[in-house]
Amino acid sequence: MRRQDNCPLCAADGGTLIWRGDRLRVIRAAEAGFPGFYRVVWNDHVAEFSDLSAADRALCMDAVALVERVLREQLAPTKINLAALGNMVAHLHWHVIARYDWDSHFPGAVWAPAQRERDGAREAQVAQLLPRVDAALERALDAWAA
Amino acid sequence: MRRQDNCPLCAADGGTLIWRGDRLRVIRAAEAGFPGFYRVVWNDHVAEFSDLSAADRALCMDAVALVERVLREQLAPTKINLAALGNMVAHLHWHVIARYDWDSHFPGAVWAPAQRERDGAREAQVAQLLPRVDAALERALDAWAA
Repeated sequence: MRRQDNCPLCAADGGTLIWRGDRLRVIRAAEAGFPGFYRVVWNDHVAEFSDLSAADRALCMDAVALVERVLREQLAPTKINLAALGNMVAHLHWHVIARYDWDSHFPGAVWAPAQRERDGAREAQVAQLLPRVDAALERALDAWAA
Repeated sequence: MRRQDNCPLCAADGGTLIWRGDRLRVIRAAEAGFPGFYRVVWNDHVAEFSDLSAADRALCMDAVALVERVLREQLAPTKINLAALGNMVAHLHWHVIARYDWDSHFPGAVWAPAQRERDGAREAQVAQLLPRVDAALERALDAWAA
């Protein structure tokens, strides 16, 4: 495993661990206002997507697409947002975010300023589905890796 | 070609066209403050990454990685940012953005609030390199598609 000192994604999972494979893991993030927020984290310390081999890039994006599909099936979001930024933590991780037209930032990015008040009742409805999402992700990732 | 009425990425290239293939095109965006801002746009009207077949996803991300690699080689940015959001225009397009630690928003996302004044002189230095970036992208994409 390639590791870097002081990298938070080398030191810890980076969220609630949903599934771990040899090359990558899937975690659920805790980002206020966005209950359906998962990350695909590459296990090795790699900064940029294009640092991966073609085979590893394909593996990585297969996992991202799988997480996206499960979120769509389980949460029926208005839109999925995908991003690999890494300006703060330059260890490859893909944000996979279920967005809703009623969420506080839609149609802006989750990093943009809020456009309206948060809707706690609707957020709670989504949050209630997360155990089912987590279980569906685990099943789908196990089947994928098998 | 799958098209949707009133979709700006069905109606037009969406920026300065750098290269066009059967399935996707690469454009240079004009986003104030971020001269090294390109997009890989899927030609068909498709909303989500996971709507693509596995083969098309691989093709799409191959192009994203190629653009990323050329930007790294030509512009030596601090970090590359990749994102497919589509909240405003739900037609699959990947932002590939060269970020610098001196840019107005770093280490925030380009959609986040600015953290400092823009540095016009440094932006102009990057902008001066864009003809070379465009040419390198065209060559690399031609070779890739051949």
